[in-house]
Amino acid sequence: MMMAEAASRIGLGIAVLASSPDDPIFRVTPDVFVGNPKSLTDLRRLADMTQAITFDHELVDPAVLDLLAAEGVVMRPGPRALAVAIDKHRQFELFKKLGLSMPETVIAHDVESALAGTATFAGEAVLKMSTGGYDGRGVLLDTDRTSVREWFHSVTGPVLVQQKLSIDEEIAVQVVRSSTGEIVQYSPVRTTQANGMCTTVEVPSGLHGEIELVASSIARTIAEAIDVVGVLTVELFAIDGELHINEIAARPHNSGHLTIESARTSQFENHLRAVAGHPLGDTDLIVTAAAMCNIVGSEGMSERIGPLPGHVAVHLYGKVPRPGRKLGHVTCVASTTQDAVAGARRGARDIEQRRFEP
Amino acid sequence: MMMAEAASRIGLGIAVLASSPDDPIFRVTPDVFVGNPKSLTDLRRLADMTQAITFDHELVDPAVLDLLAAEGVVMRPGPRALAVAIDKHRQFELFKKLGLSMPETVIAHDVESALAGTATFAGEAVLKMSTGGYDGRGVLLDTDRTSVREWFHSVTGPVLVQQKLSIDEEIAVQVVRSSTGEIVQYSPVRTTQANGMCTTVEVPSGLHGEIELVASSIARTIAEAIDVVGVLTVELFAIDGELHINEIAARPHNSGHLTIESARTSQFENHLRAVAGHPLGDTDLIVTAAAMCNIVGSEGMSERIGPLPGHVAVHLYGKVPRPGRKLGHVTCVASTTQDAVAGARRGARDIEQRRFEP
Repeated sequence: MMMAEAASRIGLGIAVLASSPDDPIFRVTPDVFVGNPKSLTDLRRLADMTQAITFDHELVDPAVLDLLAAEGVVMRPGPRALAVAIDKHRQFELFKKLGLSMPETVIAHDVESALAGTATFAGEAVLKMSTGGYDGRGVLLDTDRTSVREWFHSVTGPVLVQQKLSIDEEIAVQVVRSSTGEIVQYSPVRTTQANGMCTTVEVPSGLHGEIELVASSIARTIAEAIDVVGVLTVELFAIDGELHINEIAARPHNSGHLTIESARTSQFENHLRAVAGHPLGDTDLIVTAAAMCNIVGSEGMSERIGPLPGHVAVHLYGKVPRPGRKLGHVTCVASTTQDAVAGARRGARDIEQRRFEP
Repeated sequence: MMMAEAASRIGLGIAVLASSPDDPIFRVTPDVFVGNPKSLTDLRRLADMTQAITFDHELVDPAVLDLLAAEGVVMRPGPRALAVAIDKHRQFELFKKLGLSMPETVIAHDVESALAGTATFAGEAVLKMSTGGYDGRGVLLDTDRTSVREWFHSVTGPVLVQQKLSIDEEIAVQVVRSSTGEIVQYSPVRTTQANGMCTTVEVPSGLHGEIELVASSIARTIAEAIDVVGVLTVELFAIDGELHINEIAARPHNSGHLTIESARTSQFENHLRAVAGHPLGDTDLIVTAAAMCNIVGSEGMSERIGPLPGHVAVHLYGKVPRPGRKLGHVTCVASTTQDAVAGARRGARDIEQRRFEP
């Protein structure tokens, strides 16, 4: 939705492969068809309608993308970057090679080594699927033996057993890389998570300038290493002034939604600029402080949109409410991050509650 | 286009009556049909698709809107407000009644009184059609006898003969009125015109706070007097610290495009909020300074969009270039209006020139 809005603004035509006929994208753009993003046939159809293809999720099949690439289809990011971005095991190998810090990790190919890994960290571990996880899915936080056994049988591929760290702050940093290798970076943001889903994002991050520089440098290093074209998001843990990579995403990301209001060029527009081969837009902060809060569905929520709050920028995604589902977000601009966070939280709660009305 | 982008963002569904199959709106929203905004049949079709109708231009027929209103169709603004907003003669009568200042005006129903009016102002006059003029069309600036005679025969209805004033500044002020009578106002902007078309808009206006208050008060008075629902734009001349109304528009307006970046809630979103019966959004300035420049077509311009500048927010409307046609606009946010104006001008020229490339 937000990519479509940015495309409209800069005069780019788009076509969309939607995974369901209920996708809200049908309401805002005419060239949409229903298909499977892992299907070669469906992707070929999309390629015939466009000059370049990009993805706003990780549910892709690198082997299919390789076939498409061989047919001359332009994909940004390309299959190589996506293959890493969707696979935490490959990221682990890459970060090790690049000398970038991440929480101590054991790769477990079977349940016994998963249990052994968990024991290594004295039970203070978190288990992650290599692929397919998002918004807290594909992650196991309760690592007693029974839970590990059960969970392991429900997943495929190798599993990352990571030391659970005592985190001071979580931050995210975004860079955008153009098709010519130009890189721009956004101000790092501070993020707050609940149940594995990002709930509040604020900018400026409040971290020391030096740590922010390190964060940006890490993101640039990864962007170049995987040859990404478009937005690369890196989520990091800050512990005692040191940064450890949590995960990455090669696409516009929840932690960058607030750039629509806070930055000179939003992450969505810059992603499209990169994909379309335009020069990138400036990423400087144009407001003093901003914060974003997700609007999350809950049991019994009404589909009707209640009165909208007036102190935040409201972004609704047109989705049917379901418990735990991200239905939209609000961004609040203010003169301090504290006020921005308070305003964003109030705005999001306001909409979540009002939607309960009959 | 910009209304559609705002609608998408706040989760409002829209349907559009477009006047041509070439309308760029076809590319960004699926529920569009071609029709005549003055046709009762076409407006009934639009009414069947929607809960409320609004207009983004003045090419309406108040008699047709009265018929629709009698059928129970909700129009915001309503026929009464539109009847005034599209008719400078009715505005003249209204402003006189409300005691609001406008340049000295003679209403001419025939060419002889037009010539007499022009003579009253010692040739320093401007002639305006009551209805149908925009972007410099429907206005006569050269008021020699021959030109007045020729022009008068090409127009219908009474004509306003206005004294041409020596203007210090032109400003515009926008208010938004909700369906419940709530009014919010934007910071007044300073505008620069060329050939009757607004070329640069900047905020803050640089005018004294007191004059800004008078401007806002004038806009509120008119909004209430004509019972507008949605955005009302009032363009004013500042002369020796006094304000004189130039013209009004009951819709989002070129002078408010920069609110997308500069204000907490844009004029487009607030117009839609008013039309949809939502509470209005806050209108405060969230940046230090901003300026907007139109991107205007010229002879031989290419349809291809060249590389986009990165220091401005680019808004392209997807229109085929034609000399003098507004093809889009750019907004530049900066720490001073001077820098913002320079940045916006550079951005607009950049796109205008780059589009020439083969």
